[in-house]
Amino acid sequence: MSGGGRSFRVGLLGHGTVGAAFEQLLPRHADRVQRITGLRPELSGVLTRSRGSFDDLLERSDLIVELMGGIEPAREYVLRAMRAGRHVVTANKLLLSQHGEELWALARREGVQLRFEGAVAGVVPVIRVLQESLAGATIDRVHGIVNGTTNFILTEMARTGMTFEDALSEAQRLGYAEADPADDVNGRDAAAKMAILARLAFDTPVHLDQVRYEGIEHIQPDDLEYARELGLGLKLIGTAERINGGLSVRVHPAFLYPGHPLASVSGPFNAVTVESSEITEITMSGPGAGGPQTASAVLSDVISAMIPPASTPATTQMLEIVQDVVSAFYLHLEVADEPGVLAMVAQALAVAGASVKSVVQKGLGDQARLVMVVHPVLESRFATAMDEIARLSVLRAPPRAIRVLEEEFG
Amino acid sequence: MSGGGRSFRVGLLGHGTVGAAFEQLLPRHADRVQRITGLRPELSGVLTRSRGSFDDLLERSDLIVELMGGIEPAREYVLRAMRAGRHVVTANKLLLSQHGEELWALARREGVQLRFEGAVAGVVPVIRVLQESLAGATIDRVHGIVNGTTNFILTEMARTGMTFEDALSEAQRLGYAEADPADDVNGRDAAAKMAILARLAFDTPVHLDQVRYEGIEHIQPDDLEYARELGLGLKLIGTAERINGGLSVRVHPAFLYPGHPLASVSGPFNAVTVESSEITEITMSGPGAGGPQTASAVLSDVISAMIPPASTPATTQMLEIVQDVVSAFYLHLEVADEPGVLAMVAQALAVAGASVKSVVQKGLGDQARLVMVVHPVLESRFATAMDEIARLSVLRAPPRAIRVLEEEFG
Repeated sequence: MSGGGRSFRVGLLGHGTVGAAFEQLLPRHADRVQRITGLRPELSGVLTRSRGSFDDLLERSDLIVELMGGIEPAREYVLRAMRAGRHVVTANKLLLSQHGEELWALARREGVQLRFEGAVAGVVPVIRVLQESLAGATIDRVHGIVNGTTNFILTEMARTGMTFEDALSEAQRLGYAEADPADDVNGRDAAAKMAILARLAFDTPVHLDQVRYEGIEHIQPDDLEYARELGLGLKLIGTAERINGGLSVRVHPAFLYPGHPLASVSGPFNAVTVESSEITEITMSGPGAGGPQTASAVLSDVISAMIPPASTPATTQMLEIVQDVVSAFYLHLEVADEPGVLAMVAQALAVAGASVKSVVQKGLGDQARLVMVVHPVLESRFATAMDEIARLSVLRAPPRAIRVLEEEFG
Repeated sequence: MSGGGRSFRVGLLGHGTVGAAFEQLLPRHADRVQRITGLRPELSGVLTRSRGSFDDLLERSDLIVELMGGIEPAREYVLRAMRAGRHVVTANKLLLSQHGEELWALARREGVQLRFEGAVAGVVPVIRVLQESLAGATIDRVHGIVNGTTNFILTEMARTGMTFEDALSEAQRLGYAEADPADDVNGRDAAAKMAILARLAFDTPVHLDQVRYEGIEHIQPDDLEYARELGLGLKLIGTAERINGGLSVRVHPAFLYPGHPLASVSGPFNAVTVESSEITEITMSGPGAGGPQTASAVLSDVISAMIPPASTPATTQMLEIVQDVVSAFYLHLEVADEPGVLAMVAQALAVAGASVKSVVQKGLGDQARLVMVVHPVLESRFATAMDEIARLSVLRAPPRAIRVLEEEFG
């Protein structure tokens, strides 16, 4: 399917990492968006600081995506687009944390949508969840790991014992830190994001200047070493919470005990925990940055701006429902403690194409217990092996098998 | 603020745990919802299997909340409400996993909203995220812990070594399992939820009967013991994934390695991980059940049905931005290895009202290193103590302090 149908023209401001990723993503998803919205999205043009006319682009666009970053001319363009009745999608946290009230007020006045999921925590849908899912909840506190660069650096320092400087170089080499990482490592980037989250969660205007922040440049490797002895892990934590009828918004490094929902968030990931008496707490996590990920958050905003709120569209796929799949297995056997038992079991598994990853064997008087993990194998073939094993005369109890999800992350 | 303004009449079907919690929640949030939507929500009536007339209630309602559970008469009432042009909010996973296509088709035909966030994972906003935030992503796999009862039982079995039967009794005693827990422990409840998630994620009709499921009744305490030796934790995992152009949807116990994003989800919590090449992965977690939590998810659906998609409303609060807060601290001191140093440091902390929670001291030639964690204290007072300590003649390097988030969960 291509062409045909009414088009929906998206004007793009900015062509950095996220802008370029969005330019690639949009045509790849045009068919899919057309099925959902009835309109076919197409890029009407790209404006950069050095190239293109904003007036021309605005004229040719139904919606403006602002990915230039910085305050001006981004602010000016967003204001002009909304005054001209266009929806705007932006990922610009600095702009929103300093001029948000002006922009949101204009959007309400003009009756246009200003969406900004990509501005905080990349693809983690914390903006939508705060604005919509939690519209009925009274929020007590928001905790967030909202800067992937610093979380990567702290994870590397803790894992390897390297210094801040070396971990920063490593982050730059892998593309997790920019050439000028100042705003990331000093906490200002996280502060801007916490200002936006606090504004939404607590229904109070919050400006970046009101957020106290402290970075991670002063963290020493032995802080992390001692912390491990004390059972603590270090994160750059943003907090927005009600205190004595007021609101505290701050960013600083903090140690977490292992039970904290943010303690297991490592590498370049972001995560946000929202606490409220009605809901207890929700935690959301995922990649915090990256061009394709943020571009995907931007695209979801564009789709939302194109349509009224979700009905559940009719299905367009009719995938076959598959019953037999590949799994790894834990296998627990009570057997007679005789020579050759392990060989018999291994043989039954091998015939079915299942290979053993690890084995623990324990003698228990004249019995033995054999616990093993088997590499992934088609479940029907594993079941055949289990039937075979269950028939072995050395079995003292029915075999027990439980699936193992293979490690694919982290 | 009370009374005044146009009202929005909500008819409630069912008065079990969630229904009763919703009945309490709605008036408590009426002011807030009115500020967001311009309409004041009020309960127009409650229908139960034994009490009330559906026709009367429908007549007096702008929206129907269905919390009866089961198939009939819930299906009949939901169909009739939508045919009468009413939006419907339901938390009925059995109904949607067996008659979803019929209901969603009618909602599209009638142009009404049928919302169902409360049907899967309680307050964890996985339905909205799949329908809206991920509308632009091609999903490869969904993994979920979507039954809180079984996750609580498995957590208790692992923690204490108790049997399945004892852990189930414990869950019933604490209200995490119902009197008849069959559908929870045999995996059918989770299978219904995975059918709904698979439908949304893969754009394919999925009926509960097509979901393969296996429960946790057969899990033995020593399975968990051996698993710990192998570095594994056990969860009841729902999976929906693309396989060879088809779709597999299944629920079974599975061991997870510690790096898996679902490995740290414990007790009655639910969590869902969505994987996609565009976004890498998102994980969302929170309480999976409970009357107030599910009622809160239902209320957010009601609010969404009352209004067009989120603009960012003007703020109505003007909370004071607080700068001084209470924190626990890690404190790292390089000091001369002399008698009385610890006393001097402790004295400076005590004067500021800071008490020591733990201390590690290490000798290093003629120096010593003193690392301590200090109980929560107002940050301004801790700063005073730090100034005092920095002036001590025994200090060999500037003191270093890092905040510690106190354990509040788990």
